[in-house]
Amino acid sequence: MNRVELSTFVFQCTESKYIKYNTTSTIVPGKLNVHLVPHSHDDVGWLKTIDQYYLGTNNTIQGACVQAVLDSIVPALLADKNRKFIFVEQAFFQRWWNEQSEEIQSTVKKLISSGQLELINGGYCMHDEATSHYIDMIDQTTLGHRYIKEQFNVTPRIGWQIDPFGHSAVQAYLFGAEVGFDSLFFARIDYQDRAKRKNEKSLEVIWRGSKSFGSSAQIFAGAFPENYEPPSNFYFEVNDDSHDSPIVQDNINLFDYNVPQRINEFVAAAVKQANITRTNHIMWTMGTDFKYQYAHTWFKQMDKFIHYVNQDGRFNALYSTPSIYTDVKHAAKEAWPIKTDDYFPYADREHAYWTGFFTSRPALKVYVRVMSAYYLAARQLEFFKGRNKSGPNTDSLADAIAIANHHDAVTGTEKQHVAYDYALRLAIGYKEAENVVAESLAGIANLTSKTGWGFQTKFHQCPLLNISYCPPSEVDLSNGKNLVIVVYNPLGWTRNDVIRIPVINENVAVWDSSGKEVESQLLPLLDVSVGVRKYHVKAYLGISPKTTPSFWLAFSATVPPLGFSTYIISSFKSEDATSVRQDYKSESRKDGTIQVGPGKLKLIYYENQGNLAQYINSKSLVKESVQQSYLYYRGDEGDQIVNPQASGAYVFRPNGTYPIKSDNKITRVYKEKEHVEVEFLVGPIPFGDKIGKEVVTQITTTLKNNKTFYTDSSGRDFIERIRDYRKDWDLEINEPIAGNYYPINLGIYLKDNSNELSVLVDRSVGGSSLRDGQLELMLHRRLIRDDSRGVGEALNEAVCISKKCRGLTIVGKYYLRIDPLGEGARWRRSFGQEIYSPLLVAFTEQDGLDWTKLHLPTFHGMAPSYNLPENVAIITLQELEDGKVLFRLAHLYEVGEDKDLSVMTSVELKKVFPYKKIRKVTETSLSANQERTEMERKRLVWKVEGSSEEEEPKVVRGGPVDPAKLVVNLAPMEIRTFIIEFNLIVPN
Amino acid sequence: MNRVELSTFVFQCTESKYIKYNTTSTIVPGKLNVHLVPHSHDDVGWLKTIDQYYLGTNNTIQGACVQAVLDSIVPALLADKNRKFIFVEQAFFQRWWNEQSEEIQSTVKKLISSGQLELINGGYCMHDEATSHYIDMIDQTTLGHRYIKEQFNVTPRIGWQIDPFGHSAVQAYLFGAEVGFDSLFFARIDYQDRAKRKNEKSLEVIWRGSKSFGSSAQIFAGAFPENYEPPSNFYFEVNDDSHDSPIVQDNINLFDYNVPQRINEFVAAAVKQANITRTNHIMWTMGTDFKYQYAHTWFKQMDKFIHYVNQDGRFNALYSTPSIYTDVKHAAKEAWPIKTDDYFPYADREHAYWTGFFTSRPALKVYVRVMSAYYLAARQLEFFKGRNKSGPNTDSLADAIAIANHHDAVTGTEKQHVAYDYALRLAIGYKEAENVVAESLAGIANLTSKTGWGFQTKFHQCPLLNISYCPPSEVDLSNGKNLVIVVYNPLGWTRNDVIRIPVINENVAVWDSSGKEVESQLLPLLDVSVGVRKYHVKAYLGISPKTTPSFWLAFSATVPPLGFSTYIISSFKSEDATSVRQDYKSESRKDGTIQVGPGKLKLIYYENQGNLAQYINSKSLVKESVQQSYLYYRGDEGDQIVNPQASGAYVFRPNGTYPIKSDNKITRVYKEKEHVEVEFLVGPIPFGDKIGKEVVTQITTTLKNNKTFYTDSSGRDFIERIRDYRKDWDLEINEPIAGNYYPINLGIYLKDNSNELSVLVDRSVGGSSLRDGQLELMLHRRLIRDDSRGVGEALNEAVCISKKCRGLTIVGKYYLRIDPLGEGARWRRSFGQEIYSPLLVAFTEQDGLDWTKLHLPTFHGMAPSYNLPENVAIITLQELEDGKVLFRLAHLYEVGEDKDLSVMTSVELKKVFPYKKIRKVTETSLSANQERTEMERKRLVWKVEGSSEEEEPKVVRGGPVDPAKLVVNLAPMEIRTFIIEFNLIVPN
Repeated sequence: MNRVELSTFVFQCTESKYIKYNTTSTIVPGKLNVHLVPHSHDDVGWLKTIDQYYLGTNNTIQGACVQAVLDSIVPALLADKNRKFIFVEQAFFQRWWNEQSEEIQSTVKKLISSGQLELINGGYCMHDEATSHYIDMIDQTTLGHRYIKEQFNVTPRIGWQIDPFGHSAVQAYLFGAEVGFDSLFFARIDYQDRAKRKNEKSLEVIWRGSKSFGSSAQIFAGAFPENYEPPSNFYFEVNDDSHDSPIVQDNINLFDYNVPQRINEFVAAAVKQANITRTNHIMWTMGTDFKYQYAHTWFKQMDKFIHYVNQDGRFNALYSTPSIYTDVKHAAKEAWPIKTDDYFPYADREHAYWTGFFTSRPALKVYVRVMSAYYLAARQLEFFKGRNKSGPNTDSLADAIAIANHHDAVTGTEKQHVAYDYALRLAIGYKEAENVVAESLAGIANLTSKTGWGFQTKFHQCPLLNISYCPPSEVDLSNGKNLVIVVYNPLGWTRNDVIRIPVINENVAVWDSSGKEVESQLLPLLDVSVGVRKYHVKAYLGISPKTTPSFWLAFSATVPPLGFSTYIISSFKSEDATSVRQDYKSESRKDGTIQVGPGKLKLIYYENQGNLAQYINSKSLVKESVQQSYLYYRGDEGDQIVNPQASGAYVFRPNGTYPIKSDNKITRVYKEKEHVEVEFLVGPIPFGDKIGKEVVTQITTTLKNNKTFYTDSSGRDFIERIRDYRKDWDLEINEPIAGNYYPINLGIYLKDNSNELSVLVDRSVGGSSLRDGQLELMLHRRLIRDDSRGVGEALNEAVCISKKCRGLTIVGKYYLRIDPLGEGARWRRSFGQEIYSPLLVAFTEQDGLDWTKLHLPTFHGMAPSYNLPENVAIITLQELEDGKVLFRLAHLYEVGEDKDLSVMTSVELKKVFPYKKIRKVTETSLSANQERTEMERKRLVWKVEGSSEEEEPKVVRGGPVDPAKLVVNLAPMEIRTFIIEFNLIVPN
Repeated sequence: MNRVELSTFVFQCTESKYIKYNTTSTIVPGKLNVHLVPHSHDDVGWLKTIDQYYLGTNNTIQGACVQAVLDSIVPALLADKNRKFIFVEQAFFQRWWNEQSEEIQSTVKKLISSGQLELINGGYCMHDEATSHYIDMIDQTTLGHRYIKEQFNVTPRIGWQIDPFGHSAVQAYLFGAEVGFDSLFFARIDYQDRAKRKNEKSLEVIWRGSKSFGSSAQIFAGAFPENYEPPSNFYFEVNDDSHDSPIVQDNINLFDYNVPQRINEFVAAAVKQANITRTNHIMWTMGTDFKYQYAHTWFKQMDKFIHYVNQDGRFNALYSTPSIYTDVKHAAKEAWPIKTDDYFPYADREHAYWTGFFTSRPALKVYVRVMSAYYLAARQLEFFKGRNKSGPNTDSLADAIAIANHHDAVTGTEKQHVAYDYALRLAIGYKEAENVVAESLAGIANLTSKTGWGFQTKFHQCPLLNISYCPPSEVDLSNGKNLVIVVYNPLGWTRNDVIRIPVINENVAVWDSSGKEVESQLLPLLDVSVGVRKYHVKAYLGISPKTTPSFWLAFSATVPPLGFSTYIISSFKSEDATSVRQDYKSESRKDGTIQVGPGKLKLIYYENQGNLAQYINSKSLVKESVQQSYLYYRGDEGDQIVNPQASGAYVFRPNGTYPIKSDNKITRVYKEKEHVEVEFLVGPIPFGDKIGKEVVTQITTTLKNNKTFYTDSSGRDFIERIRDYRKDWDLEINEPIAGNYYPINLGIYLKDNSNELSVLVDRSVGGSSLRDGQLELMLHRRLIRDDSRGVGEALNEAVCISKKCRGLTIVGKYYLRIDPLGEGARWRRSFGQEIYSPLLVAFTEQDGLDWTKLHLPTFHGMAPSYNLPENVAIITLQELEDGKVLFRLAHLYEVGEDKDLSVMTSVELKKVFPYKKIRKVTETSLSANQERTEMERKRLVWKVEGSSEEEEPKVVRGGPVDPAKLVVNLAPMEIRTFIIEFNLIVPN
C-alpha cells in the first residue's frame, strides 16, 4: 500500500500549471559545478550490424536505432538553446546526414556552429586501441575529421574513447595530441588502477604517451570514475524497462511528488564524485549505449534537475560538453599528475582480464590487416591513374576498413552475424578497389603501347592466395601461353621478396622483363593445404575448382619503390631442363641433425629432441637454441561457487595448460633473409570434449630478460612490459597468465645483455613473456561460454558448407629473429613495415606475343634512382576528391632505438613526385583537418605535478618545409601529414 | 553470412538523397483503401498505476510513458499535415494538457480543430463493460466529454472500446447511440463468433443493443479481425525489443534494401483483411499498448508505406481515423448484418473464458460500487449546499471513480500495487466528499438555527460500517449524551429501511425527531464479526480500537425523497425496560422446523436437511423450497501437456467442484420486506494446500426454467441467457461451467410458468444458472497461477498487518426473492435501485440539549409532498463549475417488464426544485456535451440486411420538455439528461 497516511493526507487540488525550467546556468566559480554531458554511445556494430543499428532493425536483439537518436536530437536542441549534445560516430552521422532534407541540414549546421551540437572524437567509429593498427586509426579518423571539416568547417576538440577495452599510448599522443585534441576521455582502466587513482584523485592526468615526443605530445586525459553511464539512478531513456530511475515528479497534482528527494540524490551522487576529483568541476556522462532514441525524455529530466538543483543552491548543475569541461579544467591552473605508457591490459575485476580479445576472431583480424595494406597500395595506384569521377574507387574499402576498426569489430567481440557483416563490407570494398588496382596497373603497363591508358588488359589478383587458391596462376601454359605477373611495391624503398604462386605443372620457368631467366623453386603442395583450399573455396565461393595445383612456384622478385616489375612464367618442355631451377630442401646431416636455411641463417634441428633447434646466423654470429612449441589453455567456464567468470570473446581466463603435437607448421628460411618465417595452420580446434581451447605458440630461448619484454602500441611505439608488475600501482596478481598478456600488432621482443629475441606478427594477437627467455603468442581461440560482457555468444567460429560446419581454421605467419643486442630494431621496424605492406601481385595472360615489348615492364612511381630512407614509410598517398593529394610520411624508429636509423631523416618531395609539379604543400594535423601551425597555436598548456619542464630531454621534430627545396625532415617517430597541390602533369 | 552473391554484387555508390514522402492520398473509390489509424492504447492503470504510466516511472515493470506519447505526437503531426492520430483516455490527456505551455496548448487546439488529432471515446478511461455499473460509465464518460467540449469545442464521434473483455448491450446503445457516437469499435469477441463473422464478413454490424429502443438507438459497430494491433510485422515502436518488424529500408546505400518486399507484405496483409470485410475499405489499427512513445518512428514508416504502396498502385494507403472510416462505410450504402444483445462472455480460445474477472477482487468491486453511490448522494448534498469555490468538493471522488472503472481496475485484472492505488484514490476522494457531505448536512440542519449555514456541527460517517466499525456510534451515552443520526435518502421516493449501527451498551433507545420512540432491535455481535473488525481496523487504520461494541442496534428509518430524517439515540437506565424493543429471533417449532421472518415472508428450515428451506410468502402465496449452499471450484493450474491455461485474474477455468460447510452466513428477513437478505463472509480462502479456489453460492429451487435465465447488462437491461447456447453461432462447448458465466451488476433471475426466482447483488459478480431451477454467484477467488494474459501475478489477495498477511476476507450481501410470474421486475428494479443507493447515515453528538429544537430535523429536498414515481431515479443531480446543474433521470423499467411500471412516466421539475426558479432546461446527449436535438440531427442512417424497418415495433420516447410546464416524460428505459439553469434562489 502506498505509504500515505490517509488521515493526514491533504489532496492537492491546485490546478496544474506549465513549469518553465530555468536551464540557463553556466559555470559558477564558488560552487561545485556538475557538468551534465548528454551523449549516446553508438557502437558501429556489435550485437547488430552497423546498418541494423542505424535503421533500428533486428530490434529483438537490441532495441537500438541511431537514426532515431539523431532525428530526435534536433528538435530537442531547438526546444531550448541551453541544451547541448555531443555526437561521436561519424559512420552513423554521415548515414543520417545524407538522408536529411536541406531544411534539417541547415538547422543542424546552425546547431553545430552554435555549439549546441558538438561533434567530438569524430572518426568513423570509436576505434579499438589494442587490435587496431595505427595506420587504420589514422585513416578512419581522417575520414571522419575531413568530412566534418568540409561539411561544417569544424575541428573536433575532444578525444572520446569511452568504451575501448584499455587505452594505448598511441591513442594519447597520435590520436590525442597530434590530431589537435585538447583532451581525451575514457572509461575502461584496470580496476586496481582505478581504485588507486580515485583514492589519489588521479583519474585525470596529463598523459605523455610518447617517449620520443614527451610533453610536446601530451594531453589532458580523464578516466571516468565508473563507466560512461550516468550515476546509477539518472537514466531517462524512452521505453526502457532495464532501468528504474524515478523521474523528477514535480506535479503536485499527481502521486509521488519527489523533488526534494531527487535533488538530495543528485547532490549525494555529486558529492561522491567530487570527493575523488580535483577542482570543483565534475562531469556526468548523461547517456550510454544507444540512448537518446527519444532525446526529449532525457532533456526533460535534465531540465528539471538543473532547475531544481540550482534552486536548491548547494551545487551548480549545467548543460555542458567535454570541451567546456576541458576548458574549465585548464582554467583552474591545477598541476596534474603525469601518466606515461598506456592503460593495458584492462581488467574490470579479479579474474576478468580483457586480454582474450587481443586474439579473438583471428581470421577477421588478418582480413582487416590485409585489407588495410591493400587499401594503402590501392590508393597509390589510384593516385597514379587519377581518381575516377565515376566508376570504381577506393572509398567503399575505406569505409569498410574504418568500420572494421570499431572496438567491437576487429576486436572480435561482436556477434557472429555482425562479424560476417564486417567481412562482407571488406569484401565489397576490396572488390571495387581490386578494379581500381587492375585499371591502374593496366593503364600504366599500357603507357608505352599505342593505346595509352586503357583497360583492354585485364589484371587478375588472388585474394585467396593464403588458401593456395589463385585461378590466374593455375592456368595451363603448355599451349604456348605466358603468364604475366606484375609485382607492385607500395613501399618507398626497393625490395626483394619471394613470390609464391600455385601452379598446376612443374614444367614452368620464370623470366624477368629483360628476358633473363630467374631462379625459381618448386615445392609440392601439402595435402593439408589442398584440403584447406578445397573446403574453403567451396565455403567462400560456392564452387569446387576443377583442377588442383600440385606445386608452389617460388621466385625472388626485385621491385622498385612505388613501382612495379614484371615477370613472365612460361612452360618449357620437360627435356629442356632449366639451369636456374633450385630446390632448397632441408638437409639431413651425418651427425643426426637436420639443417634448414640456404643463406646466412641456418636452423639446425636435433632429431628426437622435439622442436628444439639451434639458431645460427653466420653473419651476426648469433647462436642460440630455440624451442618452438604449441599448447593450449583450457578456457575457464566459470562456476557459481568460486567465480562465474568464463573465458570468452573479451576475457582470457585460462584454466590449465596442455601441450599440442604440432604437424601443420612450415618453417621457412630464405636465402636473402636473416629471419625465420613460420607458417602455421591451427584448427579446427577440437570441440568434441566441450572444452574451450585457446591455442598459443611459445618460443623459448635461454635469454635472461629478467621479466622484461616489449610490445608495440597499436603497431607503433614499443612499450616496456614487466611480468607481474605495473608501474602505476602495486599489482595484486590474480591471473598470472592473462594478467601478463598485452596486445601485439607489430611485434614483441625481449633482450638480455647479449641478444634480442624478436617476433613479428601478421595480424593483431595477444602475447606475453611468461618465463624469462620465452615469448608467447595466442593464435586462435574457440570457447564454449559467453563471458558476460554483453555479446551473449560463445566465441565459437565455424566455416560452413550449406549447413554443415566445422570449426574455423587459421592459417598465418609469424617471423622470428635473434639479433645481437641493439641491432634488433632495424629488422623489427623496416622488415615490420614490409610485413604490413606486402608486394601486390597481379596476373594477366599473354598469348604468344612478347609482353615486355608492348608494355611498360618496370614502373617507377618515384624518380627512377630515388629510394626513401629505410627509416621512412609513405603511409598515405591518396588523391582526394578535390584533386589535392593527401601525403603522409612516418618515421619508423623511436628515439634511441637504432644507432643509425633513429635520426632525423628526409624525403625529397620533388623526387617522390617526379612527374608532377608541386604547387603547394600544406602541413596539417594528423587527421588533415587543420593546418599544423593553427593546431599548434591553439594547443593548451598544462601544468604537471612534480617535474619541472627543464628536466625533459629536448624534443626534436622536422622543421617547416621550404617551398623551394620541398624536402621533408622527419625526426624519430614523427608522422607528418601534408596536403599537396599540383600543377598540371608534367609531360614525361 | 549475408546472402549477397559477391561475384554479382554491384555496390551502389550513389550519393544518398533526402526522400520526400508523398502522404497526401485520400480515398480512392475504385481501389482497396487501407486506412492506417495511428493510435496508442493507454491503460488507465494495469501493471503500473495511472501516474506511473503517465510519468513513465516504474519502467522496469513496463517501459511505458504516456507523457512521452503526447509530447511526441505534437511535433510528429506538425511535421506533416496529412498525418493523423487519435487519442482516447482523457485521464491521461488532462494530466498532460494541464502541464503544457500556452504555446503547446494553442498548437494542440489547432491540431484538434484541423482533425489531425482526434479525441475519440473521450471518457476518462476505456471503461469496462462487464463489471462497471452504467451510472459510473455515464459519469466517467461525461467527465471526459464535457472537458473536451469546454477545452476544444469538440464532440467525440467514435466509440473505441478496443480492449475491454467482451461488450455489453448498454455500451452499444447508451455509450454508442445515446452519447451521439457514429460508430463503435472493439477487438475482443468470442473466438468462435469471430471465426464465423470472418467467414460471413459480419465483423461489422449494425448493433441494436436495446430491446426497448431498437433501431432508434442502433450503432455501426466493428469488431477487429484479430486485435487492436497492426498486422504482425508492422510495429514501429522506438526502443522496442519485443517485435521485429523490418522498417522500410529505401536507402540504396545501406544494406538490406527491402522496398518491394515490404510493399508485397503490406499488400498481402491487406488482401487477407479485405477478404473478410465488406466494402473496399479496411482499417489497420496502427498501434497498441503504450506505443508512440516516440511517435516519429511510427509515422516515419507509415509515411514510407503510403508513399510506396501508392506508387505501387495496387492498393491505396492513407492516414485515416475511425471517423473517416465510418463515413466511408456509411457512404458505401451497404446493408449491414444486425446484431442484438451483447458480446458476453468472451473467450479468446478454447478453455479460456474471460469470466473470472466478473468476480476478481470482490473487495475492490464493492468499494467502487459503494463509492459510486456515495458520489451520487454527495453531489446531491453538494448541490443543496452550493458548490465550494475553494475547499472540499466531490471532484477528486469523481476522478477516482472514473479511473476505477477502467477495464483493468474494477475488473480486478491489475497488479496488486495498482489495485491499492485505485483504492487509495477512492479513499482520498471519499475523504474530501465526506467533508462536503458533512458540511452540507450541517448546513441544512443548522438552517433553522440562528447561525444559518455553518460548520460548527461536525457530522461523522462510518465508511467501515461493513466491518462493524463506527466510532461515532460506539460512544458511551450513559453520561447523558445523545447520539444524533441523520439519515439521507438520495432516491426520489420516500423509503423505509433498517439502520444498523454497532453500540457498546444495550441500554439505548431510539427516538424519532417528533420525540416518539422507535421500535429497535439489539443483536449481539458475532465473534467472527468482532474478529474481522479487529483485524481490519488494525490493517486499514493502523489502530486497535479501545472498546468493542457488543451489539448491533437496528431500527427502521423512514426518510423523505432527496431529504433526511433525524433519529436520536440515548441511554436509559436498565430498569426502565423500553416497551418498543423487539428481538426477532428464529423460532424453533414443534415439528422440528425453524422459522425465520417477522413479516409476510417466512423461511422454514428443516433441521438435519442442510440448507434446505421452505420459502413462504403469505401475501403473494408463493411457496417454494430453496436450498442455499456454498462450494468451490478448484482453479485449474494448466499443464504443458493438454492445455497450459490456468484459472487467473481474467480467466475462469474450473477443475472440479467441492462443497463447503458454511458457518459465516447470516440470513435476514425483515418485517416490511418480502425478500431474503443474505450476508456472507467468505475468506480467508485456505491456501495451505496450494490449490486455487473460486467460491460460489448456489440457490437451488424446483423452478423449471428450461436452460433460460436473465442477467443485466451493466446494471441496466436484462438479457436472456440460454445455457450452452449462443444466438449468433452454433456453440462448441469446451468449458460447460465457465462458458455459461455472465457478468452481474444488478441481478440474475430465472422463471418458469409460475414463478420467478431473482437474486440481486451488492457489487459486480459473475453468475450463471448451470442447472434448471438453480442460480449461482461467484463470491470470491484466490488463485495460485497467473493466467497468461499479461498481468503476470496470480490473483492472491491478502490483508496485512505489518508484514504478516492473511488472505482477503469478503463480507457481502445478496438478496433473494421469489415472485409469481410477471411480478419480479418490480422488486428487481425498484428495490435494485435502493440497493445501489443506500441511505446515507451521519452522526453527531448532542450534549444534553434537544437537537430537534435547534436544528432542522427533517429535510425535504423536493417539494415536501412530492415523490418521484417508483419507476424513475435521479441518477445525476450535480452543480457544475459554471453554476448550471446537470440533471439526469432514468426510467428503471424495460418495455413490457412490468404491467404497471413499464409505462411512460413523468417528473415535475418544479417540484423537484421547489426552492429554485428554473430559467432554462436544455436536453443533451447522455454525456451532456451537445444538445439532444443537434445529436439527433447528425445521426447517421444505416441500412440493415433482411428486415424492413416496418417490422420493428414503434419506439416510444418522452417528448420535448415544455418550458412552461417543465414536466419530463420518460418512456421505459429512457435516460434523459438536462442542463438546468436557475435564477437566483427563491427565498424559502
